[in-house]
Amino acid sequence: MDIKQIAKKAKAASIQLAAVGSETKNNALGNIARALEKNKAAISSANTADLKKAEKENLAAPLLKRLKFDESKIREAVEGLNSLIGLADPVGVTQSALELDKGLELFKVSCPIGVVGIVFESRPDALVQISSLCLKSGNAVLMKGGSEAANTNRILADIISRETVAAGIPAGWLSLLEARSDVTEMLAMDEHIDLVIPRGSNEFVRYIMENTNIPVLGHADGICHVYIDSKADIDMAVRITVDSKTQYVAVCNAAETLLVHKDIAGNILPQLKAALTNKGVELRGCERTARLIDVLPATEKDWRTEYLDFILSIRVVDSLEDAVDHINRYGSRHTDVIVTADKERGGRFMDYVDSACVFMNCSSRFNDGYRFGLGAEVGISTNKIHARGPVGLEGLVIYKWRLIGAGNIVADYSGKDARAFTHRPLKKDFKV
Amino acid sequence: MDIKQIAKKAKAASIQLAAVGSETKNNALGNIARALEKNKAAISSANTADLKKAEKENLAAPLLKRLKFDESKIREAVEGLNSLIGLADPVGVTQSALELDKGLELFKVSCPIGVVGIVFESRPDALVQISSLCLKSGNAVLMKGGSEAANTNRILADIISRETVAAGIPAGWLSLLEARSDVTEMLAMDEHIDLVIPRGSNEFVRYIMENTNIPVLGHADGICHVYIDSKADIDMAVRITVDSKTQYVAVCNAAETLLVHKDIAGNILPQLKAALTNKGVELRGCERTARLIDVLPATEKDWRTEYLDFILSIRVVDSLEDAVDHINRYGSRHTDVIVTADKERGGRFMDYVDSACVFMNCSSRFNDGYRFGLGAEVGISTNKIHARGPVGLEGLVIYKWRLIGAGNIVADYSGKDARAFTHRPLKKDFKV
Repeated sequence: MDIKQIAKKAKAASIQLAAVGSETKNNALGNIARALEKNKAAISSANTADLKKAEKENLAAPLLKRLKFDESKIREAVEGLNSLIGLADPVGVTQSALELDKGLELFKVSCPIGVVGIVFESRPDALVQISSLCLKSGNAVLMKGGSEAANTNRILADIISRETVAAGIPAGWLSLLEARSDVTEMLAMDEHIDLVIPRGSNEFVRYIMENTNIPVLGHADGICHVYIDSKADIDMAVRITVDSKTQYVAVCNAAETLLVHKDIAGNILPQLKAALTNKGVELRGCERTARLIDVLPATEKDWRTEYLDFILSIRVVDSLEDAVDHINRYGSRHTDVIVTADKERGGRFMDYVDSACVFMNCSSRFNDGYRFGLGAEVGISTNKIHARGPVGLEGLVIYKWRLIGAGNIVADYSGKDARAFTHRPLKKDFKV
Repeated sequence: MDIKQIAKKAKAASIQLAAVGSETKNNALGNIARALEKNKAAISSANTADLKKAEKENLAAPLLKRLKFDESKIREAVEGLNSLIGLADPVGVTQSALELDKGLELFKVSCPIGVVGIVFESRPDALVQISSLCLKSGNAVLMKGGSEAANTNRILADIISRETVAAGIPAGWLSLLEARSDVTEMLAMDEHIDLVIPRGSNEFVRYIMENTNIPVLGHADGICHVYIDSKADIDMAVRITVDSKTQYVAVCNAAETLLVHKDIAGNILPQLKAALTNKGVELRGCERTARLIDVLPATEKDWRTEYLDFILSIRVVDSLEDAVDHINRYGSRHTDVIVTADKERGGRFMDYVDSACVFMNCSSRFNDGYRFGLGAEVGISTNKIHARGPVGLEGLVIYKWRLIGAGNIVADYSGKDARAFTHRPLKKDFKV
């Protein structure tokens, strides 16, 4: 099958899948979990083949680590599936119910989006997580994984397809795409694909956002800030800055720029420098920073750079408002943190910073689907519509308006002697 | 100011406006209502100038009617503003609250989208409705109205700007664009504009969708269907078909194609033909239709055409499934209706038709923000994400994740001896 046929089949499957009940979907997820356990030897050996090839091709150590899908990773995937089974079905939820008139009732009911196209990096565990989130939310999915993980992805996709179809999920709901050219074709198929979720490098995500008419959910940059307010507790501010910067530098929710209120800069910067240097962080600062501690000079470019490395840019600001302006100007609307003991100032920061996640007195690294209690995530969104921050099941559904009448026509509600609408809220779930 | 500066100013105003309280926004809406009353003579005379020019340029009668903004239209606009004041503020609503750990609390709180760009047709009442919806939902707005309504739009925009700023709304939150070239520039400003809502002809909306990286909310076609099921009540089916087709033919929620189950076609088509011909509707039918009543032949093209006129295409189908397939293939995911006395079949239709609005036993013409009890609408969306169907205040907001800690860092929640998350739902609204 060529990719157009695959996408057409996915669209047809998505229509059927939208009406599949929770029990069938949960049975399918259970099937996947059991099959992963049962086939762990075969999965491991497929993964070993990928790892060997990657080593031969001198893939970098962090990539090799992400590519690894061993027994402990399989166990984690199984645990993830079992916890997903326990979550409520996001489909078929009555979001509002309104009587328009006696016998004319309107319901807003959640439903799947349709067909989701996902392009993701080397991690095979992402394949299991994303496809299971799509299944639970009733969406068909086209997945393009990294070529480094081809063997692992193939066996995983085979198992997931087979086991879900055996449970009654319509065939064709999941397909694995393997060629790089498939991505280009995918981006042109706005007739069959309803949403694209790219996970990869900034350049790659930006390329996708600029080259498709299909809505894209995700983020390119993750330029996150920690702002240390004049009213911050110094120890807490140091701890949060170190964690936000160094707990895992290669991820989108790590801090890249530190903003420090001028009234506290002299007190805190020396202590911060010691703590960060101790962790191997290179510091780049504005002129006022350079007057207080020894740093490399930061340029305009630094404020716009996502290092994803042990580098932090530092700027001293005159006020909370200046910090907010800096963030709204240079940030990427991802995750921004204020450290302050003053609640009113914390509230103001959270009101005015235009980002998906605004945190007070905690690390930027908490932005994550699992930590947020969403179960898992398909990605983190910096979009301004539909879904922001970590996107779990809720970001994979939309709604339909279902109106049930008894022969009602609009002519009766217009002109002279028009019937009036009652617009009376109903306390019931949708039922035909 | 050039449009880039206007957009930049709107972005800055949007940040401030996001934190403006309900009372100030409602006061501003009240100010507008009073000023419209007070200035009705000046508004009427501006509108008369537009009407005279339009008559001289031989604008079609329906367009002239839409352009008219007389005292009764002003009164309607004032009523609309007063009812909008009565609606709940959609901003600052806590959508979920979760304790991640003792003293680490996560809130999902609704907030405005930011800057909305709106391009609309000649109706000046749309300017008042759309700008007031944006204000209540805390969004800044750039509006481009039709040039036919230039004088009316200008006085309305002036009044709204002045009166809202007097009430404490940040200056620059609303701007009226007047040049056609402004639209092109607007579409390129994805840095400053967060959402575009186009209201106009299909070609125009499609052009906008294909020429911007800014998310677009709206619809191009409105190819709506009425499906008369084998189990339909014949009188009801005739009544609903006539209303869906003829109550107002020039609008997106009017029916364009009628699907009739083969088992009922022989009974109902002659009656339908009489009723529709009586209303001046031209009928185009498939071959099986033509065997039962006298119609013009329908071609493949008819199934894809939004007539917006007194024309209806008719197709006889073998089953409910065939009707669903036809709708999902040729429809525009706007509004589709089943007429049936069988609830199970009605439910199946609503499950499988992939449209924003799926109706049973009532007219397609009910798809409308006012009729749906949303107060008013900025437009009707056939998107698959964010908002579907009539879009009122709720479609103009998104949310921010607000996390409040007491110095929490992620390092404490990972590795050996990791602290566990509690993930305990909280029953409270966000408060710093």
